[in-house]
Amino acid sequence: MTDPIADELRDVLDGRWIDLRRRARTELPADVMLAPPGLTIEEHRARTTESLLKIAELGYGRVGFPAEFGGELDYAASCVLFEMQAYGDLSLLVKTGVQFGLFGGAVARLGTRRHHAAYLEDIMTAQLLGSFAMTEVGHGSNVQALETTATYDERTRELVVDTPTESAVKTYIGNAARDARMAVVFAQLVTGDGEHGVHAVLVPVRDESGEPLPGVTIGDNGPKGGLPGVDNGTFAFDHVRVPKDNLLGAFGDIDDAHRYVSDIDNPNRRFFTMLGTLVRGRVCVGGGSGAAAKKALAIALRYGTTRRQFSATEDQDEIVVLDYLAHQRKLLPRLAKSVALSFAQNAVTERLQELQGGPADAERDVEGQRELESRVAGLKAVTTWHALDTIQACREACGGAGYMAENQLTQLRADVDVFTTFEGDNTVLLQLAAKGLLTDYQAMWGDLDVPGMVGKIAGQVGGRIVERTTGRAGIQRLIDAATGRDDESATDSLPWAVSMFEQRADHVLETLGNRLRKATKDNAFELFNQAQDHVLLAARTHIDRCVLEDAVEAQQGIPDGASKDLLERVLILYALGSIEQDKAWFLEHGRLTTGRSRAVTAAVNALCQELRPQVTTLVDALGVPDELITAPIVR
Amino acid sequence: MTDPIADELRDVLDGRWIDLRRRARTELPADVMLAPPGLTIEEHRARTTESLLKIAELGYGRVGFPAEFGGELDYAASCVLFEMQAYGDLSLLVKTGVQFGLFGGAVARLGTRRHHAAYLEDIMTAQLLGSFAMTEVGHGSNVQALETTATYDERTRELVVDTPTESAVKTYIGNAARDARMAVVFAQLVTGDGEHGVHAVLVPVRDESGEPLPGVTIGDNGPKGGLPGVDNGTFAFDHVRVPKDNLLGAFGDIDDAHRYVSDIDNPNRRFFTMLGTLVRGRVCVGGGSGAAAKKALAIALRYGTTRRQFSATEDQDEIVVLDYLAHQRKLLPRLAKSVALSFAQNAVTERLQELQGGPADAERDVEGQRELESRVAGLKAVTTWHALDTIQACREACGGAGYMAENQLTQLRADVDVFTTFEGDNTVLLQLAAKGLLTDYQAMWGDLDVPGMVGKIAGQVGGRIVERTTGRAGIQRLIDAATGRDDESATDSLPWAVSMFEQRADHVLETLGNRLRKATKDNAFELFNQAQDHVLLAARTHIDRCVLEDAVEAQQGIPDGASKDLLERVLILYALGSIEQDKAWFLEHGRLTTGRSRAVTAAVNALCQELRPQVTTLVDALGVPDELITAPIVR
Repeated sequence: MTDPIADELRDVLDGRWIDLRRRARTELPADVMLAPPGLTIEEHRARTTESLLKIAELGYGRVGFPAEFGGELDYAASCVLFEMQAYGDLSLLVKTGVQFGLFGGAVARLGTRRHHAAYLEDIMTAQLLGSFAMTEVGHGSNVQALETTATYDERTRELVVDTPTESAVKTYIGNAARDARMAVVFAQLVTGDGEHGVHAVLVPVRDESGEPLPGVTIGDNGPKGGLPGVDNGTFAFDHVRVPKDNLLGAFGDIDDAHRYVSDIDNPNRRFFTMLGTLVRGRVCVGGGSGAAAKKALAIALRYGTTRRQFSATEDQDEIVVLDYLAHQRKLLPRLAKSVALSFAQNAVTERLQELQGGPADAERDVEGQRELESRVAGLKAVTTWHALDTIQACREACGGAGYMAENQLTQLRADVDVFTTFEGDNTVLLQLAAKGLLTDYQAMWGDLDVPGMVGKIAGQVGGRIVERTTGRAGIQRLIDAATGRDDESATDSLPWAVSMFEQRADHVLETLGNRLRKATKDNAFELFNQAQDHVLLAARTHIDRCVLEDAVEAQQGIPDGASKDLLERVLILYALGSIEQDKAWFLEHGRLTTGRSRAVTAAVNALCQELRPQVTTLVDALGVPDELITAPIVR
Repeated sequence: MTDPIADELRDVLDGRWIDLRRRARTELPADVMLAPPGLTIEEHRARTTESLLKIAELGYGRVGFPAEFGGELDYAASCVLFEMQAYGDLSLLVKTGVQFGLFGGAVARLGTRRHHAAYLEDIMTAQLLGSFAMTEVGHGSNVQALETTATYDERTRELVVDTPTESAVKTYIGNAARDARMAVVFAQLVTGDGEHGVHAVLVPVRDESGEPLPGVTIGDNGPKGGLPGVDNGTFAFDHVRVPKDNLLGAFGDIDDAHRYVSDIDNPNRRFFTMLGTLVRGRVCVGGGSGAAAKKALAIALRYGTTRRQFSATEDQDEIVVLDYLAHQRKLLPRLAKSVALSFAQNAVTERLQELQGGPADAERDVEGQRELESRVAGLKAVTTWHALDTIQACREACGGAGYMAENQLTQLRADVDVFTTFEGDNTVLLQLAAKGLLTDYQAMWGDLDVPGMVGKIAGQVGGRIVERTTGRAGIQRLIDAATGRDDESATDSLPWAVSMFEQRADHVLETLGNRLRKATKDNAFELFNQAQDHVLLAARTHIDRCVLEDAVEAQQGIPDGASKDLLERVLILYALGSIEQDKAWFLEHGRLTTGRSRAVTAAVNALCQELRPQVTTLVDALGVPDELITAPIVR
């Protein structure tokens, strides 16, 4: 029994890579994608490695690599595939993400043709398993402060990779504890010319039989809060020598005359250009967590339409729990937000393709790249927190049944947890997003140096802000329609909601700029720290605005009809849910009267009840593959 | 090195059962209390059972049982012990809770002297392991609708216990899958006189060798989201016969003439009187989750004072992460709430002792008992959600290190998760708390029948509300002091905060009463459902008020000095954090001007920075046993 509205909405949500999504829905085999609950860590790890090999056998390892070396589709398609894989076991997702995305991606993006020719085929087929060794014990968010060194020895034309202190030990590295034969090691490069900042070096870590190579000490991070199938571990290097060709030299290399050479003179800028090529990882993490949230919603909402508890009167059946307002309030605004976030995710994926999907030697759009990084950072934070919060709400909405592993919610939540802090801690990422709004993008080289940010931007905030926050044409028309009607416009209308989102983001950013403009060299940290909550609010409200704009743009593109109307109501629920959470801000800043503020809550309640009969259609539209929902409570 | 302020505050927090707390801190052996991470489910279960036996060997199984049968201390002391055990492995906590609290408690409270004489010694020494079999597949929150039957057979003087349908199968039952030899089975009692509602029957479920007895089918719930050491399972009964003496007959029994006899005529009232004796379970769950939150805070705050990341300027050391406002905001308001909740927990524990700590045949204070149930229901919901939220914030505050199982946060969070829905789903419990505020306690027999509530209370809300919400004398003096100064009083003052809490709770309740008073028999469910978010708000704001009152009362009782002053600042932070979250409500209802609303946020920020240097003292005051914090990040 097909539901034409669900089908149409699913196509809209699927967006540009609709064919890949459809293929993944039918081709990825459930027995590979799902792990049974209750495996031991060793069993889960073994199973995950096997499944990784099967995914590679199916050819999915080739997605996102250059066609010239055997890759398929385009660069951003790998993000879409990552999303689709997130409907299965997230251990497998992260394991494949480490192999093809982080390890393979680093070789592809930071390496040169000789590295591509030597390694990509083996990476895509998972014949060469590898790690991405960036984080150190003492250095998580502040990657520029890494301590591992790669010192060039002219005599032997080798790089000597070394771990000088305990805090320099690489840790939490996926694929390290069990499988990796090679690692991309991030280290401070030192040559006869001096220090050149962090670079990536390919270091073999295990021999054919799996034994650590001489000088390489490998540890196991052991049990974690989730992702039991991922073998996270540690690497320490004791003066390990590799040929200088192992330097992934796309952005900085050592020539045959032992000289350090780079297109980019400024070491800071060079480092962040390298990091920028890795932005795909954050796009993936956002998309994957968004998919996990949808799967949880599909389970909890379906259960909510069948589970009954308590009668209204003695002679009636018990009430379906999703008919309770409190239950609707738990799940429907989160469903609406999941829908809205999907469009924002599609938008950054497309933008990634535009900016990085071309040939390696294409001219870089530096400003566009910084803007994408800023957007992706914020969206990753917002989406991963949404996922964590949503999966937990779904777990609770299913009561004791939700706590049983067989119903798929608890492992999902445990696995997604770390998405909020890996590939960038969410709080740090929101600050990075804020920085992108406040500073000239050219001045953003120093991305992660958060407290130092204010000092650097002092005096330059202002003019650029307004320019960057004007909406798109379609959006602007909507806003004009709303503000024309002013206080009388209905709170449950899209134009009004968009206008509120714009006002919120603009005002928060403008006032933040005014605060930070007062910075001097001496008080910069103090001033930043006093305003840190304001900084985070600016980032969050900006991302919220982007999400709504992307979603509205997609909605406006649908032909008139029931699907378009339904999506409009869903987006209004998303927007009002957000406005309701920030009610105090709107009231404090005179953007809502108290009467209209109350009307917002009433409208959220009314929308929940209005959308209740559409729940089955909306869940269907999410496109979670049925075969991957094995929870007995909804089978 | 002792810190006299920490010591003094710890004593205040320890409250009436300070000696038992001190004993538990030093006597409970860490090797029994903690489970190593990474055990398989079977290993964890085996270990938990062994540890349960060791706890019993140490005599802790006797806490809370009547002295006449070998018990020790008093009834409520068992809640305090539960709190102290929650600093260890929560699987062990729940396992002991099932054995001594639920199973043992049901025998003690629902059974009569013959049951006590026959079973209590074996229960306290864990020689007889048992289950508490209430929940059924189809019946979670609505316990009155249980389907299992216990039908009296006059001929043989036996009860025939039967599971008539799939939805009647007992499920999620602790101790069931592996260990229980006997179960307290809740079933609809049927005799020749008719149906008498839900009663508890002792049913042997396994023989000496651990095999299920004839007619008893035992299942295993398998892996869960947490509590891996607890063997939750299912029971189905196929006409299992037990002697009629196995009826736990304190509130309803079958006499030798085959007649059903009870002191309480109304079956509804009888059922809820029985349930009322089990309120201790919810007191324990609240206390245990509160302790878990404190342990997480101790870990994250200690780590936050040593972990450094990012420099303010190039020539300086990296900054200690707890010096960032955003990090303080993550952890300090939650620390303050943990402190405040401790006093509320102490208060309900003491009240439990007053009401249920006397001899079994003491006259029942029916109104007091209902009031306690209502308070405990709400406090359990507020505390368990606080714990879940706090442990997660602590996990994220520790970044990747927080995700490693060895750092103790992830298992704690996974285990506490289910505390929000077991022993009563939090949303249902908040409704129960609201009901206690709206209805005459005498009319509350029907406790859990949520949608039906409005119909029953229609027309009777009003007068009683005001009476029930007047504060205590000391609190009233504080409020008077605040309102005297009106708008000029500082936002960071305790009197002002208390006054805001009172206004919020009173107004929310009063307006809810006005809405619900319009109910007729026909629109009761509709009306209730439209107002469900208002109902939940009324409960939550009432509990918040109670928490603050209990905390302020304890604070006022401390001799003047540094400890009292510090605690005052902590409680103000708690209160302002809550006011800040509800800012929109205060603005909408004209209780805050926009200027003062902003001042609240500024005050929260300022308090975070003010309390930053006191963090070590405050963590020390929480009294988490040092031996139970094994996280390498803080050792």
